[in-house]
Amino acid sequence: MESTTEFRVRYAETDQMGVVYYANYLIWFEVARTEFFRERGVEYKKLEDEENIYLPVVESYCRYKSPLKYDDVVTVHTKFASAGASRIMFEYSVSSGDKVNAIGWTKHAFIDAQGKPVKVPSKVRKMFSGIK
Amino acid sequence: MESTTEFRVRYAETDQMGVVYYANYLIWFEVARTEFFRERGVEYKKLEDEENIYLPVVESYCRYKSPLKYDDVVTVHTKFASAGASRIMFEYSVSSGDKVNAIGWTKHAFIDAQGKPVKVPSKVRKMFSGIK
Amino acid sequence: MESTTEFRVRYAETDQMGVVYYANYLIWFEVARTEFFRERGVEYKKLEDEENIYLPVVESYCRYKSPLKYDDVVTVHTKFASAGASRIMFEYSVSSGDKVNAIGWTKHAFIDAQGKPVKVPSKVRKMFSGIK
Amino acid sequence: MESTTEFRVRYAETDQMGVVYYANYLIWFEVARTEFFRERGVEYKKLEDEENIYLPVVESYCRYKSPLKYDDVVTVHTKFASAGASRIMFEYSVSSGDKVNAIGWTKHAFIDAQGKPVKVPSKVRKMFSGIK
Repeated sequence: MESTTEFRVRYAETDQMGVVYYANYLIWFEVARTEFFRERGVEYKKLEDEENIYLPVVESYCRYKSPLKYDDVVTVHTKFASAGASRIMFEYSVSSGDKVNAIGWTKHAFIDAQGKPVKVPSKVRKMFSGIK
Repeated sequence: MESTTEFRVRYAETDQMGVVYYANYLIWFEVARTEFFRERGVEYKKLEDEENIYLPVVESYCRYKSPLKYDDVVTVHTKFASAGASRIMFEYSVSSGDKVNAIGWTKHAFIDAQGKPVKVPSKVRKMFSGIK
Repeated sequence: MESTTEFRVRYAETDQMGVVYYANYLIWFEVARTEFFRERGVEYKKLEDEENIYLPVVESYCRYKSPLKYDDVVTVHTKFASAGASRIMFEYSVSSGDKVNAIGWTKHAFIDAQGKPVKVPSKVRKMFSGIK
Repeated sequence: MESTTEFRVRYAETDQMGVVYYANYLIWFEVARTEFFRERGVEYKKLEDEENIYLPVVESYCRYKSPLKYDDVVTVHTKFASAGASRIMFEYSVSSGDKVNAIGWTKHAFIDAQGKPVKVPSKVRKMFSGIK
């Protein structure tokens, strides 16, 4: 039920405090979500392109416990937390070695390209069923 | 007790959904904080440069209610929420015209350049006293 | 023939060198282009939304002469450099006070939403004619 | 003499045109430089931390030939182009499969933490000698 994504901190992601700027953790959550889907056989881009289903973030939360630095090897663990007919929630843990640097979560809506909420079609529901 | 910051959505801030990417709201919160301080006679950069005091974000939250688009005129209202000996909290409301597009908050620690928690010195406390 | 855009350096735009990260200058060029168009009565977003005309960057160049810091007041001067049937070029100068911090240029193609080159329609050509 | 870096396009890197925003290529150049150094036994962060040597970009250029999309697998080839006593130049080619999507280059100065030009010390020169 968990997925793991690994990458190095980019220079661009640091700020003048010498550590990763806080908004970048949300970008990493998204990178981790993409891989979470892929590991379960779902390509998020196909949801958009072929199913006309989008998963915009409706809420985000992050707790920053220990700063990360340029070139650190970062691991993001992603966990499926819950899903309803029109909502889905993921939890994330950002770590480097044995240390947990941040934890967070995002909640998402299911909408179509016009921004209207959609009920998750059975075809897509089946793709998610492996997650639950 | 409130501060208002206004700017336009940059093309760079949009994503392929055609709306502002969710991590950018945290960047806007930070822009709004800087102006919040300035309006109260405190330049945040001087806190860092002259007082050796840094205010890293330790928690962030955002609820996205209605998407924003390229070139939209955005207003961020910033409100001082609470402060302790070593913590401070701000609340934000992001709007465009009459519509509230997002709300959120950030919590901050007071640390020095070495990352160690600092008790807010009286000189700085006085600067903040106008906020409370 | 020149346009001027002004803003402050965001904390997010700095890196661990303590100055503005180099890719952000290209973002500023784009912010300045938007304002350049607006001052001439053209809203770039309407070009996309109403005329189905897009101006992707096909070449970019920047020379970084003097670093910029967080909270610096930055001015970008934008100049229309040249235009052909399917290309347009802008020149930029980024300064802070009397100092020129960077200069650069971008070249753009005219394409439609499908990515195909378009001849600039007379209606749009007329909008640009005030520039030349 | 060449180095190869591979990653996937992040959602955050797209814009409302549905393709990668142009400034992100410069961020990728930097990611590729870091790996270029590492493959030659040089950790760029150690240059900064232990040798007090910084390599800020003094010029950048990019030609965008074919757009990249979210989730595309991107390869950046990095080539050492030339070096003088106080300058170094890298060339980049960004591709996806057989297609070259962009080419570019960056020129860098050698400075210390105070921003003053430094002559490359012999110790560091030796690290670079494997490149030439």
